[in-house]
Amino acid sequence: MSKQHSSPTMKDVAREAGVALGTVSKVINGIPVGESYRIRVEEAIQKLNYRINNYAKGLKSNKTFTIAVMVPNLISPYFCRLVSCINKSLVQHGYRMLLCATDYDPEQEQAYVIMAEQQKVDGIICLSYNPELKVSESIPFISIDRYFGSHIPCVASDNYGGGKLAAEKLAECGCKNLAFLKIGSRLTNEPSKRKDGFVNACESMNLPYTLKIVDDGTPYAAFENFLSEHIKEGKLEFDGIFCVTDSLAYQIINTLKYMNINVPEDVQVIGFDGIRQFGDLDFYCSTIVQPVEEIADVCVGMILNKEDSLPPSLICLPVTYAFGGTTKQ
Amino acid sequence: MSKQHSSPTMKDVAREAGVALGTVSKVINGIPVGESYRIRVEEAIQKLNYRINNYAKGLKSNKTFTIAVMVPNLISPYFCRLVSCINKSLVQHGYRMLLCATDYDPEQEQAYVIMAEQQKVDGIICLSYNPELKVSESIPFISIDRYFGSHIPCVASDNYGGGKLAAEKLAECGCKNLAFLKIGSRLTNEPSKRKDGFVNACESMNLPYTLKIVDDGTPYAAFENFLSEHIKEGKLEFDGIFCVTDSLAYQIINTLKYMNINVPEDVQVIGFDGIRQFGDLDFYCSTIVQPVEEIADVCVGMILNKEDSLPPSLICLPVTYAFGGTTKQ
Repeated sequence: MSKQHSSPTMKDVAREAGVALGTVSKVINGIPVGESYRIRVEEAIQKLNYRINNYAKGLKSNKTFTIAVMVPNLISPYFCRLVSCINKSLVQHGYRMLLCATDYDPEQEQAYVIMAEQQKVDGIICLSYNPELKVSESIPFISIDRYFGSHIPCVASDNYGGGKLAAEKLAECGCKNLAFLKIGSRLTNEPSKRKDGFVNACESMNLPYTLKIVDDGTPYAAFENFLSEHIKEGKLEFDGIFCVTDSLAYQIINTLKYMNINVPEDVQVIGFDGIRQFGDLDFYCSTIVQPVEEIADVCVGMILNKEDSLPPSLICLPVTYAFGGTTKQ
Repeated sequence: MSKQHSSPTMKDVAREAGVALGTVSKVINGIPVGESYRIRVEEAIQKLNYRINNYAKGLKSNKTFTIAVMVPNLISPYFCRLVSCINKSLVQHGYRMLLCATDYDPEQEQAYVIMAEQQKVDGIICLSYNPELKVSESIPFISIDRYFGSHIPCVASDNYGGGKLAAEKLAECGCKNLAFLKIGSRLTNEPSKRKDGFVNACESMNLPYTLKIVDDGTPYAAFENFLSEHIKEGKLEFDGIFCVTDSLAYQIINTLKYMNINVPEDVQVIGFDGIRQFGDLDFYCSTIVQPVEEIADVCVGMILNKEDSLPPSLICLPVTYAFGGTTKQ
């Protein structure tokens, strides 16, 4: 009898709005519905002063509709683009993103894994530089770029294919003597394969090549010295350079300009990542483009359907070449 | 008698670890404690197989230790830096960031406000382009760059002072005829004051100036045409240009290069934001730098201490000038 005086339920909202219960649920969870439905549901929620009991809801569904996303930082444009695409994909599925820029801190990463175990989040998408990260097999966890073993699905660009493509493209543009420049983590991860693909292509084409690989933290002067050492009679020995990232390519191009070596006339340069100025303007350089949207979509699709299928342990998505003015085509 | 067989409590963990209850709480909530304490607590948690009852915890403390952060996108380097700094500041306070890139979508913004009302998050920090956004006074809400009225605290750079500084700096560098270029939202927000400060400084210095202001979505060609129209006898009439953002400055500098007008010899250019290539390398241009870290820290400090004080309705933080090669000093 006193039903009208007790707290309104989701059913009451559906009745008031004249819509199905599922529609109310969608609106509450932020899943898109038709504009007119949304307005009716929101008006009914307001009229009845309906308030969702989240904790009861949490106990019942055991879901938080939240995915933790961990990246090393939000300074690198590649990580920003990745996070942006993951956010977009999650929102399309009615999920939210709990973002942590870990600053390469293993403790922060471990804390988020513990949160997932405690069901504060429904899963984790992680780009980790921490080989010690302890991940339980019982929680939905997708790794980007780092292969933890066959129990943890890993999604990455086809880095090997990208390295190969860079060498082949430089050869196609007429280069006869190549160099590969890398600064980065000494850990074996998917991006390490860029070198392997590059070397493989050079050897199958019988193209001479030189590698200059230094650890993270090495001063940039190491590359300036390397280039200087390879100038013979005022001319750089290499006519094609593949840089492990667009960021390194940017610095190398500036150094070459300072040394009065013309790009692309004297030496052609290809980077890796596909970064654009201000996120949406020109490419920094000719580059191997990582399929960031596809990586994001695959990660999100896999983490939301974890129970349905046993995913493959490593998914490598195809990269493409983009002209950015630092090669002849 | 059967105490040992029931679920372990936080007190049991504290006893096992030989630490204070507060230390256990800190470890669980990700608040930094001494390394040795953290290890002892984590070992005790593992040994006792302690699992936090989050929903009970939620009901009790009514806190989620989560702040929703809304920005229009994660493509613009300025928004990325802002989010990065807010994340860092939140983590230092033992909070987590629920990030939403709203893609300028009012519905998504409104959904997050509803979440805050339902206490799924402890507060919202929002950079909104939506003047219609309905915000209840009862939830902790901090706005960046958009002033909603004296009931909602707003934190921004001193945009007026920045516009003034740009004009003064160009004058100091010897410019005699200035232009201000802007593309952006027609809405009045804090960044609109960049123009007002610029105009004020030009008028007090008796420097001639021209404004070219177009709405968001206007093709960039509008600026190319504007520059072409102001070339007299092969020479640009302006010797100093202030662009509303570094992003616009980047495009303008490219256009000037294409027109064979030398920067900074023929015309000096100042942008606004303080964006660096790849987030941490060179400035794109000489620029007015927004104090992003300070903006983030003030927002986080205010939202976590909402109850303690009545904050001022608008806080403008000081900007600085940085040389980036597109001015003479």
